[in-house]
Amino acid sequence: MTLRGRKKGEAVPQGVVARLPVYFRYLSELEAADIERVSSAQLGEALDFTAAQIRSDLSYFGSFGQQGYGYNVKDLLQQVKNILGLDRTYSMVLVGAGNLGKAIASYESFRTRGFEVTAIFDIDPLLIGNHHGGCVIRPYQELGHFLKKTPVDIGIIATPKRSSQEVCDLLVKSGVTSIWNFSPAHLVVDDHVIVEHMHLTDSLLRLAFRMNEQLMTRS
Amino acid sequence: MTLRGRKKGEAVPQGVVARLPVYFRYLSELEAADIERVSSAQLGEALDFTAAQIRSDLSYFGSFGQQGYGYNVKDLLQQVKNILGLDRTYSMVLVGAGNLGKAIASYESFRTRGFEVTAIFDIDPLLIGNHHGGCVIRPYQELGHFLKKTPVDIGIIATPKRSSQEVCDLLVKSGVTSIWNFSPAHLVVDDHVIVEHMHLTDSLLRLAFRMNEQLMTRS
Repeated sequence: MTLRGRKKGEAVPQGVVARLPVYFRYLSELEAADIERVSSAQLGEALDFTAAQIRSDLSYFGSFGQQGYGYNVKDLLQQVKNILGLDRTYSMVLVGAGNLGKAIASYESFRTRGFEVTAIFDIDPLLIGNHHGGCVIRPYQELGHFLKKTPVDIGIIATPKRSSQEVCDLLVKSGVTSIWNFSPAHLVVDDHVIVEHMHLTDSLLRLAFRMNEQLMTRS
Repeated sequence: MTLRGRKKGEAVPQGVVARLPVYFRYLSELEAADIERVSSAQLGEALDFTAAQIRSDLSYFGSFGQQGYGYNVKDLLQQVKNILGLDRTYSMVLVGAGNLGKAIASYESFRTRGFEVTAIFDIDPLLIGNHHGGCVIRPYQELGHFLKKTPVDIGIIATPKRSSQEVCDLLVKSGVTSIWNFSPAHLVVDDHVIVEHMHLTDSLLRLAFRMNEQLMTRS
């Protein structure tokens, strides 16, 4: 059912991928509020997208809506969950137990969505043995051995920039092909490896740009 | 100089805005490595964009490159800095001193880019008086009063979802018109307020989507 209607190998545009979690989040709120149906116009107004954009986005994955009725919230949410791959669970290792790493390990809503940090690694001897989010921090030197015995779905990199490529290489060498990168580095990986970047500084710079753009276009 | 060549009021496409920090980061690395010039082809290869896309992106802000020479790294970096508004400094308040808030307050590279957290606020009496990133944590009840005396450029929201809209409303009421939102909430604001979202879960869901897309298109 998932991805039907698209040709094999045809990638979904980045813009559509970026908006899928937004649909997921809002539809979850509607379901929690016992709302049964929603139109593309209502979705658009709530999320600042046009109704046409919403219909176009969702059409990538099949035809869900009905003319004059809109979307059934429960059904559409289930479809979006399937599309996002939330019908399964994911295990993750986290490398780097600084402030950001600790925040990630303790972030409750990852676990409720089916994403579980199963082990944390750091190079600092003072941190080894501490617990975060129910996980003990292990020595980085054991990462390769750990992954041989316990394959995981996702590797999270929350190390300083200078270590992140080395950590990435070890993760990939140990069979991890999906990387969630919080370090401010552009990682070099083979084509089969998926990297999702979470660059805090990039986001802050985009904010600064929009502030200045607003000043310039008003002046 | 900045924004020249565009019509007044004409917004730069989101995709271009999203790539500007990537140019900034890479050009900074080139400058640090004493590299004097770079072609759009080289930029494209390093950043996984096409050369045409890079020329098109940069053309939004004027014409920098020279046929057959490429770009002078120092000049282009300076232009990108101007475009991003990095020719000035920004003061920020941070609301929410949990793990994520602490990580943000201690993140060194914000300060080196000119973004300084000047005050941290939290509602938890046990946190008040603690220091992070050189700032003392103050009672949330004092936020409005603080902002009246000390206007800031950016308000950072790192609170739980249930409080984030209330915090946002108080920030805006107190004159803050640029919000950097780390809470997993869709904030409702007036048109003049700029909100940059940093949704961790959305990023994780995009990673999951791409993992599943890869599985589906290969099967």
